[in-house]
Amino acid sequence: MYTYGRHLLCEVSGCDPSIIGDVDKVKEILYQAAGLAKAEIMESTFHHFSPQGVSGVVVIAESHLSIHTWPEFGYAALDIYTCGEHTDPEGALNYCSEKFGASEVDITRIERGLKEETGGFSHRLSNVGAA
Amino acid sequence: MYTYGRHLLCEVSGCDPSIIGDVDKVKEILYQAAGLAKAEIMESTFHHFSPQGVSGVVVIAESHLSIHTWPEFGYAALDIYTCGEHTDPEGALNYCSEKFGASEVDITRIERGLKEETGGFSHRLSNVGAA
Repeated sequence: MYTYGRHLLCEVSGCDPSIIGDVDKVKEILYQAAGLAKAEIMESTFHHFSPQGVSGVVVIAESHLSIHTWPEFGYAALDIYTCGEHTDPEGALNYCSEKFGASEVDITRIERGLKEETGGFSHRLSNVGAA
Repeated sequence: MYTYGRHLLCEVSGCDPSIIGDVDKVKEILYQAAGLAKAEIMESTFHHFSPQGVSGVVVIAESHLSIHTWPEFGYAALDIYTCGEHTDPEGALNYCSEKFGASEVDITRIERGLKEETGGFSHRLSNVGAA
């Protein structure tokens, strides 16, 4: 299996609290996002915190999508990590951002699983910025 | 709840394939690591791929630990993301690294959930390097 993967590490701001605070909606959005990323869903787990907040992970054949939300701040910490050249993590991010009603996304893109000549593996930041 | 969190994004090399290829061992190590991070385990999901490789996530009250392994390369992509000042993600990483028999770890440390004056949230790389 390919070790090469792309990881989008995102702080998503200005989200609709009624969406990111609803565990069923968050799960549905992440499932759709995984499909748009051309990923194969293996398993998932989602948790609703009291009084508010959602944490969830979708394990895909190509790594994972994870989310933690703070509806009281309209904020979600989102990670989309997909291995393989066939995947589209950016498509998944765009979909999530739109569905959450986000106004701002701070993104760091990381290329992971890079094989070094020494035999070890490394990662590389491919850019840093806001979208 | 605090939005501030520390995320250790790690490529772990030189691991013992008989450990990182064993879903039960990987799960046990991540559970112990979550405890050492002073995190509260909420849920988890682990998957063994055919012919080899393990993916798993432990959702904690303070965010998550995730892992994807390639035993054929002695390689694991490990993320430890813990919110709150009380947590110790470095302790969790050191434990995993030792238990996997790793020879090298490429780490990027990211501070997440930083509230900006504009009201949005951002993250910041706090250092980049190998350990």
